[in-house]
Amino acid sequence: MRVTDIITKKRDGLELADSEIGHLIKAYTADTVPDYQMAAWLMAVYFQGLTDRETATLTMAMATSGEMVDLSQVTGIKVDKHSTGGVADTTTLILAPLVAAAGVPVAKMSGRGLGFTGGTIDKLEAIPGFRATLERAEFIANLQKHNIAITGQSATIAPADGKLYALRDVTATVESIPLIASSIMSKKIAAGADKIILDVKVGSGAFMKTKTAAITLAETMVRIGQLVGRETIALLTSMEQPLGTAIGNSLEVREAIEVLSGRGEPALREVCLTLGSHMLVLGGKALTPAAARQQLAALIDSQQALAKLGELIAAQGGDASIVYDCRKLPQARYHLAVTSDHQGFVDKIDAAQIGYAAMLLGAGREHKGQSIDLAAGVALTCRLGQPVGPNQPLATLYSNTELQLQPAAGIIKNAVRVATQPGEISPVIIGLVTSQGFQLA
Amino acid sequence: MRVTDIITKKRDGLELADSEIGHLIKAYTADTVPDYQMAAWLMAVYFQGLTDRETATLTMAMATSGEMVDLSQVTGIKVDKHSTGGVADTTTLILAPLVAAAGVPVAKMSGRGLGFTGGTIDKLEAIPGFRATLERAEFIANLQKHNIAITGQSATIAPADGKLYALRDVTATVESIPLIASSIMSKKIAAGADKIILDVKVGSGAFMKTKTAAITLAETMVRIGQLVGRETIALLTSMEQPLGTAIGNSLEVREAIEVLSGRGEPALREVCLTLGSHMLVLGGKALTPAAARQQLAALIDSQQALAKLGELIAAQGGDASIVYDCRKLPQARYHLAVTSDHQGFVDKIDAAQIGYAAMLLGAGREHKGQSIDLAAGVALTCRLGQPVGPNQPLATLYSNTELQLQPAAGIIKNAVRVATQPGEISPVIIGLVTSQGFQLA
Repeated sequence: MRVTDIITKKRDGLELADSEIGHLIKAYTADTVPDYQMAAWLMAVYFQGLTDRETATLTMAMATSGEMVDLSQVTGIKVDKHSTGGVADTTTLILAPLVAAAGVPVAKMSGRGLGFTGGTIDKLEAIPGFRATLERAEFIANLQKHNIAITGQSATIAPADGKLYALRDVTATVESIPLIASSIMSKKIAAGADKIILDVKVGSGAFMKTKTAAITLAETMVRIGQLVGRETIALLTSMEQPLGTAIGNSLEVREAIEVLSGRGEPALREVCLTLGSHMLVLGGKALTPAAARQQLAALIDSQQALAKLGELIAAQGGDASIVYDCRKLPQARYHLAVTSDHQGFVDKIDAAQIGYAAMLLGAGREHKGQSIDLAAGVALTCRLGQPVGPNQPLATLYSNTELQLQPAAGIIKNAVRVATQPGEISPVIIGLVTSQGFQLA
Repeated sequence: MRVTDIITKKRDGLELADSEIGHLIKAYTADTVPDYQMAAWLMAVYFQGLTDRETATLTMAMATSGEMVDLSQVTGIKVDKHSTGGVADTTTLILAPLVAAAGVPVAKMSGRGLGFTGGTIDKLEAIPGFRATLERAEFIANLQKHNIAITGQSATIAPADGKLYALRDVTATVESIPLIASSIMSKKIAAGADKIILDVKVGSGAFMKTKTAAITLAETMVRIGQLVGRETIALLTSMEQPLGTAIGNSLEVREAIEVLSGRGEPALREVCLTLGSHMLVLGGKALTPAAARQQLAALIDSQQALAKLGELIAAQGGDASIVYDCRKLPQARYHLAVTSDHQGFVDKIDAAQIGYAAMLLGAGREHKGQSIDLAAGVALTCRLGQPVGPNQPLATLYSNTELQLQPAAGIIKNAVRVATQPGEISPVIIGLVTSQGFQLA
């Protein structure tokens, strides 16, 4: 099988055979297909796309390029959640203990962050003592005992995807729906998920800027799930403003605790309850999303969900008392309130700019491997549509580096626009994509 | 300047700035842009094309990536010819002494062949004693003295093109009109041509299968010439059957001598006279192609053109007496006549298959650097439209390896089709592309 022929076939818009995709990925992982041939193939895919069958085959070829995690010893249907990434998105920290408390096993492999804020693993490491790297045996033992375990994603999971992603990043081939879809799905499948729920973010602060693009991506992933026998559904949620109010690791743990305590930002709570109710239905713990929602609300009200977070933290060596006393989380030495210059209504909060300011304060990484300031970040005190007066606070900035406060404040002031009239605000839950298609919320 | 941004810009169909193309080629030649980024860029160019300005800029960036040959010491307008490649195309060996005899300086840098037959350099090396590699000083001295010199193309000429071509070959990005056009033109410009004439082959035996594709390629090259100030015209010629009758190095030298002696295959003579007459006009040695054609015919009739070939051979150390006695050329130990099984009219001669048979006999290379059998090849004894009877000869095969004769004979029989009715035969000269556009012959 000549790789040049495989590139030519895709370049000319023909469908590749399973054996051709399989060979390509296997040989690339084994370093026998050079980067330049893979780069040409990726660009051909960018222009010609992949059929559903090709996308599913590529997904499985990448998933099986490394360890396929075996969770058969863990009772119950393992439902995994993935978000396409947003700002102030603390969903996993809330959702994981919440659905675990409802009886759905949560076997989570998460990554570290790159860019605006930390990843779930970075956030958890803001908790004193928390161990985020578990050996496979301890991971499974914790799951059996606590119904929840979270560990950093190891290099053994879908190594072909890791290698391909690094190449896509430097060859302008990231923005391809079938490549994005297969990358996400391959990791979830390799990590042992029986069923998958996707949180596809839409809007100015998200990777998918339009509803149409987001629906296409969601539908592609749902079809991959169908074709490879792992039921998948996708929720479309709005990222026209940061989802919650906290951007930064310590701050986001605190916000997760707020929501699990029945308080916190309503939009964030709404996304968690909606995702969670579908997870309960997928996991066989409720018959309808509405019934599931009642269960989840009760677990919050009774503090059982919060207790489950404490249980997770304790099981992985962390100080569980933080769930009742957030002051034990890392605190920043410096803080600064950013206030409004005008009177009016908040009509734009640029999530990407807010994220950038948080990174500048130390909350995120610009380069892989960089260390981060766990206490740094932005706490927003305004939402879209909210009336503000002059000198009223828009956000508070936190950092252990005083020097970054003023530049970050400038970015925040620029990112929050105050208008004379309140604008229209779209609901946070946009719709749902299942194998039956897209339906508005 | 980030290379990923340059790839993205081309991927998205935007026009690149001169500085961006210049940076890309310079950095790639210097090995600071890796093959995988260039491969992605090439595939993006395959899909999005290049504007005329971009193509001209790319051409000059590749031309100036190495030595720019300075022929200012040689009097006269240097007109270079390039053929897009065909089978039994001995044009250069005829044309070079013919136009040199008419006073147009011929400073030729030619390549070795890969594939069906040898290149011009391989053919010349069939002449005993001929030295095909001249230092730049000797090349120019010979030009000044004899008005003609031919040397192998050195690695100093357009090295960026050489590196890019090797990459295109393994990334399915060869078949792109602007990439083909800039590759050809960059080498001609670097080799010092003042004006350029292109022989663009069209038909089943050529790289360009359709007239439309050939015209597009020709127009692209003519426009590059305009934009970089090197007048360029292109002749479109048919490759529906091998141009001459000889495929193989020694055999082609013999056929060149035949045509220069006023005999030989009329189609081959016609292509040489047409190309040559335009070269005389470009070179300022005739006012019209018709007047030039008369001059050239007279140079053949008076044997001055043949004598010029002898002069070239002698100047480069070869045995010039071969022009009057072809038996001094390498002779094959084995030969075999291939005959027709049927009675009828020859209505198809598959040039590519005939070329492949010649390669099998030893006349061409499958891999770079392979040695070739200078005496091996195919001498066709049939033309399209010709009536043949059963057991009448179609071709004679020559080789120093007896084993290859029968397989090659099978290929030839398959490549020549005999039908009950004669088919239509298109003229060998199809048309001309100048800065005024395309005109039929």
